[in-house]
Amino acid sequence: MPVAMRDSPEFERIGALIDAVAAPSATEVELGPGDDAAILRVSGPETLILSTDLSVEHVHFRREWLTWESIGFRAIASALSDLAAMAARPLGALVSLAVPPEMDRRTLDELAHGMGECLREHEAALLGGDLSRSPGPVVIDVTVVGAAVRPVRRSGALPGDEVWVTGRLGGAGAAAAAWGRGLEPDPLARRAFERPRPRLKEARFLCQSAEVHALIDLSDGLASDAEQVAAASGMRLVLEADRVPLHHTLEHWVMADVALALAAGGGEDYELLAAVAPGTADAAALALYREFNVEFTRVGTVTDGAGVGWVGAGGESISPPASGFDHFEEGV
Amino acid sequence: MPVAMRDSPEFERIGALIDAVAAPSATEVELGPGDDAAILRVSGPETLILSTDLSVEHVHFRREWLTWESIGFRAIASALSDLAAMAARPLGALVSLAVPPEMDRRTLDELAHGMGECLREHEAALLGGDLSRSPGPVVIDVTVVGAAVRPVRRSGALPGDEVWVTGRLGGAGAAAAAWGRGLEPDPLARRAFERPRPRLKEARFLCQSAEVHALIDLSDGLASDAEQVAAASGMRLVLEADRVPLHHTLEHWVMADVALALAAGGGEDYELLAAVAPGTADAAALALYREFNVEFTRVGTVTDGAGVGWVGAGGESISPPASGFDHFEEGV
Repeated sequence: MPVAMRDSPEFERIGALIDAVAAPSATEVELGPGDDAAILRVSGPETLILSTDLSVEHVHFRREWLTWESIGFRAIASALSDLAAMAARPLGALVSLAVPPEMDRRTLDELAHGMGECLREHEAALLGGDLSRSPGPVVIDVTVVGAAVRPVRRSGALPGDEVWVTGRLGGAGAAAAAWGRGLEPDPLARRAFERPRPRLKEARFLCQSAEVHALIDLSDGLASDAEQVAAASGMRLVLEADRVPLHHTLEHWVMADVALALAAGGGEDYELLAAVAPGTADAAALALYREFNVEFTRVGTVTDGAGVGWVGAGGESISPPASGFDHFEEGV
Repeated sequence: MPVAMRDSPEFERIGALIDAVAAPSATEVELGPGDDAAILRVSGPETLILSTDLSVEHVHFRREWLTWESIGFRAIASALSDLAAMAARPLGALVSLAVPPEMDRRTLDELAHGMGECLREHEAALLGGDLSRSPGPVVIDVTVVGAAVRPVRRSGALPGDEVWVTGRLGGAGAAAAAWGRGLEPDPLARRAFERPRPRLKEARFLCQSAEVHALIDLSDGLASDAEQVAAASGMRLVLEADRVPLHHTLEHWVMADVALALAAGGGEDYELLAAVAPGTADAAALALYREFNVEFTRVGTVTDGAGVGWVGAGGESISPPASGFDHFEEGV
């Protein structure tokens, strides 16, 4: 399926595989595949949140660009980000590593250190793992486990909801764009790519402070992930190009359209997009900034309809600033 | 670390990585890395059981030997077997797939069908997953989730305990041995390799019927996995060569020593080894056979000491029939 692999969005391919598996349901499973994570109710007030995330060399990362510590850090961060997207508190992770036989111990240690750094930052335990040699690229698979009393799905957006995003966007995309052109990214962009900060505490804070109806993490990019919320909620998301918070590295770019394209289309920022009941987010945004020094910016509105639309400063429809891309190397 | 990768047993390499990660602990984690699965107590009487298992092409399987359905089936079965080894009931699995871009849809479907077959057989849901292209071999990572009121670790064996195994051993090893010599395995051996049956219900049945102190699944082979129980329990396991239940495909082999070597050293049978309080397993063995048509055979005794010893028919010490091997292609 070379055509399908390149052309159809990832969630469709997974959906088709899930259909083909035709697994039975289980009463404990409150939410199976299709959202950011699965929900299991074991007992007590908290549900269990599980998600898994692959990082493949040459696809998700290149050893020429990153230290092994950064590669390890990012593999954990991107997996934990799916827990943030459910407003779950992290419990731990299981890590599987397939590595070439010539990979030396020091390299594996660096990889492990980077993983540990991210796990500690978010107070997540290492629960288990597997290790195998492989006659191919390094493959890292991270399964994360979290708990949440009221996990927030991507499907709950309602007409009239406001669309907000945490942090600033496009930093990781700017780094990938530079590397893709054989250039060295500026330090701010490199940092954004190397040490993404999944918004775990921020997500829980926001869900306690505002009426959050839907939540997703920005792994594929604002444009692409907004599409996911729109599709899952059966709604239309209208995004205002002028409101998209540009990463500091992009703020003063002369080519403003490229900067916006990177902020809207570049993936791997691991910020959050939330659909929030009207008027309930303003105070939460202030409190979030006070508590975490993280911005929360309104970027649009939920309406009846489908898909994602973009509007300019005067409210006029404009063409999307960038199409989303699955992996940075394909899009930049 | 090419030397370390080839020479040191897998659990040592993982242990070193875990140390290097230095992740914090979490109060929910009753048992972290180092056993067959991790234990999380969320709440209620049941604990949650989690484990992850990698299958790498050219290492764990070859597409020349197996259909993609069998490859998918085995990836799930080997992961679920770790839940059996904890006497847990399976809840579900998360499946990550890294596949070459030229792999077609039909092949992925076959893989998924095999996975579904095994998931259905054991009433385990598909909880999530990830999919990525990869410029290398097919890599399948399966994380399984189960629940158990009283999970059984590999560390509980006591002096005087009897050592028992389910089923018959060496079928998968016989198939791998044939393939390794360029021969076609006989149908019974091929079947054992293609469709292993993790002993999930059998494990729970045995733990209700007998006083099981320690439990492990035979993924690396009887000799090697008995070493794991011995090391984790701080005990010695003495195994009686004449009592090892040979798989039907090996029963009438002229070279009895090779047959025993395959039964003791060949991996991937996914039967169980249990350390059971003396005298409590005989009735359970009969009941197990009546209920599941699966044999339960006493193969040895737990004593004070360390490691695994082998004795002959007269109780005399003999040399181990075979050394364990991590993956079939290395050992045969």
